[in-house]
Amino acid sequence: MNDLLIRNVRPFAGERTDLYIRNGRFCEDRPDGVVTEIDGIGHIALPGLVEAHTHLDKNLIGMDWFENRVGPTRNQRIIADRQAKRQLGIDARRQSARQILQTLALGVLHIRSHVDVDTEIGISNIEGVIEARNAFRDLVDVQIAAFPQSGMLIRHGTLELMEAALEAGADIVGGIDPASIDRDPVRHLDAIFALADRHGKPVDIHLHEPGELGAFCLELIAERTRALSMRGKVMVSHAYCLGMLDGARQQALIGLLAAEGIAIMTVGSPTAPALPLRAMREAGVVLASGSDGIQGTWEPWGSGDMLERAKYLAQRNGMTNDADLAEAARICTFGGAEGIALADHGLSVGCHGDVVLVPARTLAEAVALTPQQRTVIRRGRIVARDGVLSDELSHRRELGR
Amino acid sequence: MNDLLIRNVRPFAGERTDLYIRNGRFCEDRPDGVVTEIDGIGHIALPGLVEAHTHLDKNLIGMDWFENRVGPTRNQRIIADRQAKRQLGIDARRQSARQILQTLALGVLHIRSHVDVDTEIGISNIEGVIEARNAFRDLVDVQIAAFPQSGMLIRHGTLELMEAALEAGADIVGGIDPASIDRDPVRHLDAIFALADRHGKPVDIHLHEPGELGAFCLELIAERTRALSMRGKVMVSHAYCLGMLDGARQQALIGLLAAEGIAIMTVGSPTAPALPLRAMREAGVVLASGSDGIQGTWEPWGSGDMLERAKYLAQRNGMTNDADLAEAARICTFGGAEGIALADHGLSVGCHGDVVLVPARTLAEAVALTPQQRTVIRRGRIVARDGVLSDELSHRRELGR
Repeated sequence: MNDLLIRNVRPFAGERTDLYIRNGRFCEDRPDGVVTEIDGIGHIALPGLVEAHTHLDKNLIGMDWFENRVGPTRNQRIIADRQAKRQLGIDARRQSARQILQTLALGVLHIRSHVDVDTEIGISNIEGVIEARNAFRDLVDVQIAAFPQSGMLIRHGTLELMEAALEAGADIVGGIDPASIDRDPVRHLDAIFALADRHGKPVDIHLHEPGELGAFCLELIAERTRALSMRGKVMVSHAYCLGMLDGARQQALIGLLAAEGIAIMTVGSPTAPALPLRAMREAGVVLASGSDGIQGTWEPWGSGDMLERAKYLAQRNGMTNDADLAEAARICTFGGAEGIALADHGLSVGCHGDVVLVPARTLAEAVALTPQQRTVIRRGRIVARDGVLSDELSHRRELGR
Repeated sequence: MNDLLIRNVRPFAGERTDLYIRNGRFCEDRPDGVVTEIDGIGHIALPGLVEAHTHLDKNLIGMDWFENRVGPTRNQRIIADRQAKRQLGIDARRQSARQILQTLALGVLHIRSHVDVDTEIGISNIEGVIEARNAFRDLVDVQIAAFPQSGMLIRHGTLELMEAALEAGADIVGGIDPASIDRDPVRHLDAIFALADRHGKPVDIHLHEPGELGAFCLELIAERTRALSMRGKVMVSHAYCLGMLDGARQQALIGLLAAEGIAIMTVGSPTAPALPLRAMREAGVVLASGSDGIQGTWEPWGSGDMLERAKYLAQRNGMTNDADLAEAARICTFGGAEGIALADHGLSVGCHGDVVLVPARTLAEAVALTPQQRTVIRRGRIVARDGVLSDELSHRRELGR
């Protein structure tokens, strides 16, 4: 059933062609025998969209409206977030399922989610997101980072909970603001990298630290990446400091990231300084993007659509011409795939048979106008048509109830 | 036919109530006799959304995809824009009709459009937009600013064309970057204000000038506003300089704007410095917002939806709590109405019977998630239901063909 013939599509807005999928992977020739066919009517074909940074356990989709009275500082938001988990009874499994279903219909087939671990909830959110991951394993790849949102060293017992999270099935060691939250950058990073090394896991660190403080933390991260031979296994999320430094210092840090094979995830935040995307790309730094939290206590908006995210990235960085918009689309597909180390992602022969068909004339139009009527194919199986999940998936909706 | 009973709605997300419209205006009591009724099923009722700054003559909605190869500077964009008008054959009447119809279905009932006047096209765009204005007069208010996009003093004959535009029916005298484009701030502003004074028209100036150069231009504008007693008749669009100055200088300029009754229009640009919205509001400066050009040669995106614009404003300014989002909604309704001097705008008795019903629980949700299934009422007449224009308006679509 995972054989498919996709007629008349334009891979990355190129020439019209047919795509063949056999046993869930792209193949050279038309599969033998009776094969399901779909007419792409000239739509753009993209590989699965990659959500490289979200918080599946934090959205409030389908819940009562959360009246946000939270102040603007990060610490106020962390406290409000922790309170909300208790008071609103956010069910991590159910909310993960809701976000996964919502974005699956738009072609998001790969998700890296940071999931809170703290001394109040322990690893219950990790367990909930793992349940959702297992339930949707055939449809979406979900990577889980054990994320010490409330701090790690400053909240005794958190490090042990992170270890427990990894043993329970988390894939990645998360970290957050080694200096401004945990108040001890060296020991925070030492602890995280030691945990990752012991378990053979990648690292993904939220780094909001400003200016030279952030730059110092990036250097510490690069030193540890090199010492532990973790090239390609370290991502830094946000890295606002890169947008706050002058040209020479910025360029030196970019060179360091490229040299150590550290990927950067940026959401194109409208309030933080824009990152030097062009210089980073030219230096060979892997760039990924994500929605961050959607519809939660931090921010009330967000669709989780990674083509819309490409638009935000472009808008924030003044990328208005067609070539720039194509680059934004690349960040939200191939860039993300490389950043979170997906195997066999792409439209080439041998890759997984995952395709998103977008009704647009050019990649620039796909990004600028983000048409929602997409057809989504996963491992050769049609899971959404015109932005609507297939009927055969309707029983899966129970998981979001 | 312009009597209407709107049951069960929540004005600005307040308590449930009924609204009555008689002869196209809100009235105290239920109109007599047989009256059309509509059930608002608890939706939020807003007054008409106000688009305080767009370029109806520049969108390319429904045309071939424009491949943007334009460089990033303002001058490169102005040149590309002028070329496109010739090469693409943009029909100002038709394109205005398309944008008006698209945004009418979302509740945009009042539009101020800047319309190009230059020595290549003369006032033909003005004439085209006037045709569209007349064709939709019963549905949407359109104000037209004669806009010297390519410069005024530096392109001989432009000032005379602006005068001709006013005589043809333009409502407002536009201006642009008195220093960095026209190279002579005093003479540019003198010419614009003299024209406005002679014709008894308001002024609306695009001011992208940075830092102290922009501040100087703002002072020149304030001096002329005072000298000509034009309080409430001057708007400055963009005013990026306000986001580039230190606290004391910024506060002095804000005080000047408030003292002279000069309104500021901001789109919440993702690349320009954020304006100090809170300080401006607290000082009593009238704040309006707009989409600027949508889907054109400048930028490929944009829906023209003023609730989405409220979201952009909020995102750019870090306004994430419910009270801030309500303020963003206010800017895109009442703020815009005051900024472009609309008469009888609002939901109070005596005002025009214009209502937008939005399916959302709170104003914050309306802004954050911008539901599209809105019902739009103009002067007591239902013109769109659930985001779809009424059948009886279908013949109006001809104007966009």
